[in-house]
Amino acid sequence: MVPCFSSKVILVHAGNTDAWFKCVQTFCNPGDGVLVSEWTYPSAVATMVPYNIKPVAVSMDGQGMSSVGLKKVLEKWDESTTGMPRPRVMYIVPIGQNPTGATMGIDRKQEIYDICVEFDVLIVEDDPYYFLQEAPYVPQSERSATVRFINDEAYLSSLAPSFLSIDYQGRVIRLDSFSKTIAPGCRLGWFTCNSTFAERFERQGETTTQAPCGFGQSIVTALLLNWGYDGYIRWLRALASQYQLRRDFILDCLGDEFHLKLDYETSGVWSGCDIYRAFDKAPADVAFNEKLAAIQPMFSLVSPTSGMYIWLQLHLDNHPSFNSDGDGETLEMQLWTDLAEAGVLFAPGWMFSAKEDNLDAPGEGQFRISFSHADFDATKKAITTFGVVVRKFFEEMTRRHVP
Amino acid sequence: MVPCFSSKVILVHAGNTDAWFKCVQTFCNPGDGVLVSEWTYPSAVATMVPYNIKPVAVSMDGQGMSSVGLKKVLEKWDESTTGMPRPRVMYIVPIGQNPTGATMGIDRKQEIYDICVEFDVLIVEDDPYYFLQEAPYVPQSERSATVRFINDEAYLSSLAPSFLSIDYQGRVIRLDSFSKTIAPGCRLGWFTCNSTFAERFERQGETTTQAPCGFGQSIVTALLLNWGYDGYIRWLRALASQYQLRRDFILDCLGDEFHLKLDYETSGVWSGCDIYRAFDKAPADVAFNEKLAAIQPMFSLVSPTSGMYIWLQLHLDNHPSFNSDGDGETLEMQLWTDLAEAGVLFAPGWMFSAKEDNLDAPGEGQFRISFSHADFDATKKAITTFGVVVRKFFEEMTRRHVP
Repeated sequence: MVPCFSSKVILVHAGNTDAWFKCVQTFCNPGDGVLVSEWTYPSAVATMVPYNIKPVAVSMDGQGMSSVGLKKVLEKWDESTTGMPRPRVMYIVPIGQNPTGATMGIDRKQEIYDICVEFDVLIVEDDPYYFLQEAPYVPQSERSATVRFINDEAYLSSLAPSFLSIDYQGRVIRLDSFSKTIAPGCRLGWFTCNSTFAERFERQGETTTQAPCGFGQSIVTALLLNWGYDGYIRWLRALASQYQLRRDFILDCLGDEFHLKLDYETSGVWSGCDIYRAFDKAPADVAFNEKLAAIQPMFSLVSPTSGMYIWLQLHLDNHPSFNSDGDGETLEMQLWTDLAEAGVLFAPGWMFSAKEDNLDAPGEGQFRISFSHADFDATKKAITTFGVVVRKFFEEMTRRHVP
Repeated sequence: MVPCFSSKVILVHAGNTDAWFKCVQTFCNPGDGVLVSEWTYPSAVATMVPYNIKPVAVSMDGQGMSSVGLKKVLEKWDESTTGMPRPRVMYIVPIGQNPTGATMGIDRKQEIYDICVEFDVLIVEDDPYYFLQEAPYVPQSERSATVRFINDEAYLSSLAPSFLSIDYQGRVIRLDSFSKTIAPGCRLGWFTCNSTFAERFERQGETTTQAPCGFGQSIVTALLLNWGYDGYIRWLRALASQYQLRRDFILDCLGDEFHLKLDYETSGVWSGCDIYRAFDKAPADVAFNEKLAAIQPMFSLVSPTSGMYIWLQLHLDNHPSFNSDGDGETLEMQLWTDLAEAGVLFAPGWMFSAKEDNLDAPGEGQFRISFSHADFDATKKAITTFGVVVRKFFEEMTRRHVP
């Protein structure tokens, strides 16, 4: 599974959430900061905040955390203005980044690792989606029906190497989980790290979770022994293919619902990515639609290449009428509420912001859409509903401004 | 199982150790103290200490924590001398107290509860041995062969009521566990507490353990549904009888190995208890033995009435030659090492001390002996070995002083 160097120890844990909690308790003191991507897993931040340990946001691009952004934060660190020592710990989800779905290649990892060596930063590599890496999206009309991975070797060699694989100093603590590959809720995963840290995690376990549930360990162990290594890899390969099918299906549905225009992004969170900008496809009033399309797309997205999420950027920012909203509710939350009332539940973007003020300015908005759970019929229905709701939302907004 | 008042909520957790950790994190701040019995579960103390939360020892008698001792600590609390605010949280194992095996009756619980009301102290009732309550020990020669509990009703009515059962203010947080009744290592138990605390524990779980392992929950739930309430009680009754059999057997073995003289204790940790003082039974040199017996017993013990531990007090304190031991090793640890080398593993008493200086003075010593795990043959062998080792130990000590 994960390469195990002679200097590394594997220790089971009760799921990556608890493992990250143990990292925070082991490595951080109150008043410390932890380096995270500007959009990050909110639970990871919620784990630290009660102990007065704050997220330090690093800018992102299409591969996730930016090495340029990281270096800038660390080089320019000023304890007197930030009120905290320079961060010594990084939390990162390098594959299927939560929420953006980005996949980080080995070159970027090497750049980040080298910077962490320079500034003595520990890297906690939270990698639950590692085995769910997907090929780039190809629109339905251009897609062949062939299976993606013709054999296990092709699958394994397609996987991006981990931070662990380039760790020669023992500064990577890798968190793996069975929750995305065997069963959600099995609360079973493993640390891979140097033996000094592993010993501390084990001691910490003695006054908290002890070992993971014995029944769960027995069941998963029996399954793995029964499968053997080859069976396990075959299972993971099929799983990755299944996620790719679902990813393709939900993007196909969005393609049915909207006109997706391919573009290339050169700045911001999606810098270096092929981006799809979504326009209204077939409104009743064609003339109106041409006008709208000329102004702006309704939203943009990038096809994720791993994991189970689509990160969707709403383009609401050219509509000044909504900025003066007195009740403080953002456009994002207004649309979120409309969708929820229509029976579609997306995760609102503000939850994932690592910045000090984690509420979007009025006019901005993001959604994280999960495609892991729903079957194809439910996904189709949800995206159709999303189309109806989002068109209505934009139409109402735009009618106020287009004469 | 546990009576559930309308104002109480039941919430599953990942075992009592983790549940106590969550109580500490929820209720305590760094610099606080937590009320514990003077001999207490060491893991409970180890949970607090890294957060600079210290145990505050309360004296004990034959029922566990003393209400007189508790009142004294709280009434005389002086923040300026102790350097910490008056404790607001108590940790207590009222049934099968770990390590002494004491069982606390309802009258004592009511006294302690009332004091906690007066001083606004939360009571964390860690009660994993609740269903393992045993009848008083009757020596083998006087014991009838009849089964202890003739039916479920007799068993249930024999159980001491819990702190929870008298809690009218929501200040009791009860921790139950399946680890002593279904399987060790299943990491599954439950909080019973007011809904405000339960909500906080649930939120805290979201950034740590999440829910307990789903496989474990499924297995235990299926078992309970299959048994039904009656089947569960029948299982618990049989389990309590099994523990009583083992308790009786190990005490019988000690009775075979030593002369156990019944006495009644009026002070200290065993105040109010029938106590057994153990003398050498059949030494080669009878005259020597008479002399030794006239001086002192080798150790004393009280038959536990719940749980799985015998707490054994060694009488080493009249042997000044050992006080001047230069290497700082206590008599307790010298004997412990002799026993371990002979293949018998007891828990050394110093581990369980909640007092500031948790090393015994030279000449004092305690052991905690578990009778939960070993089968009868292994128990017999262990106690025989213990007899050989402890007699040799005392003989060597005594020969230096008896002309």
